[in-house]
Formats: sequence, C-alpha cells, structure tokens
Amino acid sequence: MKLRTTNHGVCVPGFKAAGVREGKYGVALIKSEASAKAAVMLTSNKVKAAPLLVSREHAGNEILGIIANSGNANAFTGSAGMKDARGMCSLAAELLGGRAENYLVASTGVIGRRLDLARVERLAREAARRLECSPQASEAAARAIMTTDTFPKVCSVEAVLGDGTRFHVGGIAKGAGMIAPKLGHATMLCFLTTNARLEREELEETLARAVEQSFNRVVVDGDTSTNDFVALLASGKAGNGSIEGFQEALNFVTQTLAKSIARDGEGATKYIEVRVLGARSDAEAELAARAVVGSNLVKSAVFGGDPNWGRIVAALGYSGAEVVPEKLSLYVGTRGDERRVCLVREGKPLALEGTEELRAAEEVFREKEVYIVAELNLGPGRGEAYGCDLTYDYVRINAEYTT
Amino acid sequence: MKLRTTNHGVCVPGFKAAGVREGKYGVALIKSEASAKAAVMLTSNKVKAAPLLVSREHAGNEILGIIANSGNANAFTGSAGMKDARGMCSLAAELLGGRAENYLVASTGVIGRRLDLARVERLAREAARRLECSPQASEAAARAIMTTDTFPKVCSVEAVLGDGTRFHVGGIAKGAGMIAPKLGHATMLCFLTTNARLEREELEETLARAVEQSFNRVVVDGDTSTNDFVALLASGKAGNGSIEGFQEALNFVTQTLAKSIARDGEGATKYIEVRVLGARSDAEAELAARAVVGSNLVKSAVFGGDPNWGRIVAALGYSGAEVVPEKLSLYVGTRGDERRVCLVREGKPLALEGTEELRAAEEVFREKEVYIVAELNLGPGRGEAYGCDLTYDYVRINAEYTT
Repeated sequence: MKLRTTNHGVCVPGFKAAGVREGKYGVALIKSEASAKAAVMLTSNKVKAAPLLVSREHAGNEILGIIANSGNANAFTGSAGMKDARGMCSLAAELLGGRAENYLVASTGVIGRRLDLARVERLAREAARRLECSPQASEAAARAIMTTDTFPKVCSVEAVLGDGTRFHVGGIAKGAGMIAPKLGHATMLCFLTTNARLEREELEETLARAVEQSFNRVVVDGDTSTNDFVALLASGKAGNGSIEGFQEALNFVTQTLAKSIARDGEGATKYIEVRVLGARSDAEAELAARAVVGSNLVKSAVFGGDPNWGRIVAALGYSGAEVVPEKLSLYVGTRGDERRVCLVREGKPLALEGTEELRAAEEVFREKEVYIVAELNLGPGRGEAYGCDLTYDYVRINAEYTT
Repeated sequence: MKLRTTNHGVCVPGFKAAGVREGKYGVALIKSEASAKAAVMLTSNKVKAAPLLVSREHAGNEILGIIANSGNANAFTGSAGMKDARGMCSLAAELLGGRAENYLVASTGVIGRRLDLARVERLAREAARRLECSPQASEAAARAIMTTDTFPKVCSVEAVLGDGTRFHVGGIAKGAGMIAPKLGHATMLCFLTTNARLEREELEETLARAVEQSFNRVVVDGDTSTNDFVALLASGKAGNGSIEGFQEALNFVTQTLAKSIARDGEGATKYIEVRVLGARSDAEAELAARAVVGSNLVKSAVFGGDPNWGRIVAALGYSGAEVVPEKLSLYVGTRGDERRVCLVREGKPLALEGTEELRAAEEVFREKEVYIVAELNLGPGRGEAYGCDLTYDYVRINAEYTT
C-alpha cells in the first residue's frame, strides 16, 4: 500500500466543510453528500458535556454531518445544556438537510456557562452559505474550532492499494491545553472523514486503535477535559481493500494530528517525543513514556535547555513500569537522529560534569525538537508519547483564560 | 489528651541536632542520647537512592542518630553510591559514637552524580562540634537539608494525657518541589523524634498512618522523587499512655510539616487546601481532592486570581472518583471560613457572569490561602489535599535547577 499526503484536509471527496469565527466563538460545519456511518469516542471524564451525550445518542443513525462550536463548552449546564445541544443539531438539519438526529455535535470553551445559542445560529447560517469541498474550507473549519491553539491542525492522505483500490482519509483537530493521556481525556476535538467503505463495527474498532496510538499518547498538562470528542464519518463511496490498509491510513492521519496538538501545547516552545524500548510489555512502555513526557520537571528542564537527565530517570522510576537502574540506557537527540547522545549506558552515567556527552546533551536540549529514548532492557515492550515543554506562557495563558 | 506546641523542633528531650551549610551542600546531624527504635518510610519510586537502601538495612537496629545531606541526591549512582552512603554512616559513628549500622542516612539534591564525600565529611565534622539540644540547633538542622525550600520546616508538641503521662513529638522536614501524592513519592525528607515508648511495630504502624494523612496529601507538581524518606526515632524515655494518644500527637506534627511543604511549593505564592465530602468512600474522596489540588489548570487559575470553577468540576470528573454532576455542590473560601462562597449548589451553577457569587469568588481567589470544598453527596467519604499555585517562578526554578 502507498500513502500519499493530500491537501484535502477534512474535505476528502464527498465531504464539504466551512468555518466562521466571531471573537471567541466559532462554528464549523462538516457535511457528507451521502449518508455516512459514524464512530465516535468521548471523554472518560465523569462530567461529560451535553453535546457529547447528544452525539452518543445519534452516532448509530445515518449521519449527514457535524456541527461544532468554540467559545463555550456547554459542559456542566444540566438540562438546559442538553436542550441547547439538541438545538444545534436541529439547526444543522435546517441548514444542511435531513433531521436533527442525523447530526453529531461538539463544543469547546469555558465550562459551566450557558451557550449563546443566538450567536451560534448566526455563525452557523453564515457557515452554511460558505460550505464547499476545498482545502480552504477545511482550514476554515479547523480554525473555527480553535481555542488557545496557535495554528489549525489538518491532515489527509490518499491510500493506493496493490489491487488498485483507492480511498481517502482526512481530518481536522483542535487542542492545545488541558491535554492528557487517554482519550477521551483532553480538550481535543477531532473530526475525521473517509470515503472508504466499512461496517460500523469496523469503524469503531479501527478508530479505537488509532486513538490509542495517537491522541492517547499526547500529554500536555495532565488535565482531562469534559469535552473530548473524536468522530469518524465514512461515506462508503470508495472501497477499502482491507481493514489493515484502512487502519494504516487512519493511523497516519491521527498520529500527524496528535503530534500537531503536542507541538501546539499551550505556551510551548519545544516539541518532545519520548520512546521507551525493552519494557516488560507495551503497556508498561507506554506508561513510562507518558510519565517522562508528562513530568513538569522534565518539561521545565527542556524549556530551560538544561539536560538534567536525573529527572528522566526519576520519571521512569515512578511511572509504574518495572525499571532496573543497572539495565537502563538513556539517549537524547533530534528528529532523524534520536540517539545522538548516550547519557546513560546500562546504568552507567556518561553525561557527567565536564564530559563531551553533557556538552552534546546541552546542544540537543537547545533544539526545537527534543527526542528522548529510554531502553529498559527488560523485555519486548515498546511505547511512545508526545508532548512539549512547560513555559512561562503556559502559566500566563491559564492564569488569564476566563478573565 | 492535651497537645501543646513547643519550640523544641526535632530536639525534643533526649535528642540533639546540628546543621551546617556551604553553598548548595548542607549536612544535618541528629543524635539520640539513648539508643532508639526506628521506623522508616521510603519512596515508592523504582529507582531508590543509595542512602535509602542503606537506611532500610539499618532501620531494624538500635539507632543512635541520622546523618543527612543536601546538594546531591546520591541517586542512580550504582555501587559507588552505596559505598558513599555507607561511608556517611561510618562518619556519623566516628563523630557521634556507636557503629555505622546504628545510623540512618538520607540525601537530597541532583540525581545521577557522585557525592562529594570530602565536602560532606568537612561539614559533618563542623556540625558534630555544634551538636546541642536547642531550638536553634533544630532550626540549623532543618536549614541544612533545604534545597529550593524558602523556609525551614519545624514542628513539635508535648502531649499531656488524662493520667498525667507526658511525652514529646518533634520533627523537621524539607521539600518544595518534585512533591507528589503518596509518600514515598516526593523529594521530601522528614526526621521525627519522640521520647515516647513504643514497640517497633507500633512505630511503623503509627508512622504509616500519619504519613498517609499528611505528606501523602501534598501535591505540588505530580513528580515523584527517588529520595523521599521519613524516619521516626523513639527513645522510649517517657511513657505513651496509649497508641491513640501517640498517633494524635504524631499526626499533628506531620500534618503541620506537610502543610508547610505545600505552602513552600516551588515558586508558590498561594496555599490551596481542598476538602471533598460525601464521596462514596474516603479513598475516592482523597483521590478527588488530590486531582483538584494537583490540576495545573486549577493551580494556574488560583495564581491568576481567576475563579474559573469549571476546571475544578473537570478535575473532580477525571479523578477516578464517582461524581454525579446534578448532586455536586462547590464552595470556595479562606481559612476559618471555608464555605464563604457557594459556586454550585446541587448541580446548579450560581457563580455566573455578573453575579454577586462570582465577584465574591474573585475576592477569595485573590487571598493568600484558598480553600475549596466539594460536596459530592453520594456517601460518607471524606478526604483532603494540600497544594499551592503554579507560577512563573515554578518554571524559572525548574528550568535553571542544575545550571
């Protein structure tokens, strides 16, 4: 199978999109020409926002599209919030055809305040007028759902299989803060589209696997949102060749979007990718990678360009994964050269004061992308995680968010 | 039973102390006149510093004292580190009497570098000359183990029981960053002394209970150290009246020290205390309280004086505790007036834009001590947690730590 990146974004053949912003509020619309099958994944937070509950109700229906807003999360808003979320679906049906139950709905923004439904309606009407199938429309939709994001997240691919089958997978996402391991545990929205043909159960399984290996690996601040939502719409207008082929294409799109979210962590100046090898199991490797990339102390050290690798050792040690100090090797590097510097070789620290290794590690820590590789040498387990540094701006952004 | 705070600190009757600093290094000595029984608790980090391993070996022996240093953690230092830790015990024996195995040893500071043993020896010799039983000596010892701490942590009480039995409990502690739930999961050291008479098993049980209800409730940054260590020495020169009485006195000292650590979180400008009531169980209440006090978003909001209470709701929701939004009530206040403002009453948000409640909450969030009370209304479970705000200085301190 060949994967070719395209510029469609969420507007893969058969899907239109639009986005409009007005101050903190934005509304995005996505419309499938054919009726699509959907798979959705929701936050695991016990407090689930109203639009997620409504989308969960609708996900088994024939789906015609998605309506989403930024500026207000419509979370912790009780029965009034449920009414507002249903109102957004009715609005989508009025503007785009079909019935309210043919639409998914999502929201992101401040928690605990009633949605300004009149404003959402005004923006949605304007968006409906702009609906089209184009890269520009996809980007407008991606921008409409941004909150503290600094850039829109868009990715799409065309898959060409050995037997000539072709299909597209595309998506947009938002997310920059409040991002934590395990979707749904992050204020992140991701809308995926494909013209591949799959059963609903297949969609659900491939989506769950893709999310596990992408968004669940992103750690920005350990907080967990009430509003996480990932939706995959499949129009079925193309073939899929094989589930494996579809999974690979979907993984490419979701991993690219997930890494974009990590890069755009609130206040981030640097991207951090951690790979753990040789753990007793993949699950332990993932735990260990998340602990390192989620450590405030590691994140602060990367921000400061300070190769204080003892903090990486400490994070591995408390991660819950088995770690034997005498067997641990540790490397840092940059993209394409992930093991540029060996800090620790099988328990023996190499990057000590005055050494070439420490100087080289200092150089790596000044790069914009820092890769950390830990070899536990205990088994076959592999895992990875994506994150960013902790900066003054993270604090500033979150100290000022509602005011 | 009556508890009376005293100014002894760790120098309760029968115990001497001293502390000396030189740059980043400091050495503290604590000496029991009689041979004492000891209970110790170590970090749960898989990577345990050498001094902790040595102290664990010695804890069952008759204990004469403790030697501790700041400036270097002697962690991830392999067999050389074990030799250095044993060397510190030998040094203590040479200076204070007895044999190496009669001493406990602890270290705090940078990970992965060899201890400067010559410097530790020079400081220890000076400390041995200054050893005495006085509040000043206790404070000097507390200062000698500080790293990024901004003030020494000292507390002591005398207990007077109904039957006339009297005993003392005192302690010193250090810790400011890398502090996380569950001791041992935090770069914190705490040395406790008492002249009460208890069996070793009783010491271990009361210490475990005291730590659970004090240091384990402190959350500064979610990171977990390789070097956490709590030691309790009991000389047995007084009675104890009852285990319950001793537990109460010990809890008072450890809770006071724990709250001091929370107040002195790296870069902290505000103290945060969270109380969760009405959880299904105490364990769930503790989980929920820790999630709120450990949330970077809540901590940033408190720093910014921004009563963005939706983040508190989100943290409760992802804590792992059962939360039913419709039953949740939420209050904020200050010390002695913890429920000054009701933000949410049984699921209904009161602190909305333009309301008196929101204005009052803004005032509370500008205080130096912010108390948050969440009533889940699901059962009898109660729990609490202690922490601080997340500030620019936290990032600065940790971006610059080794350089």
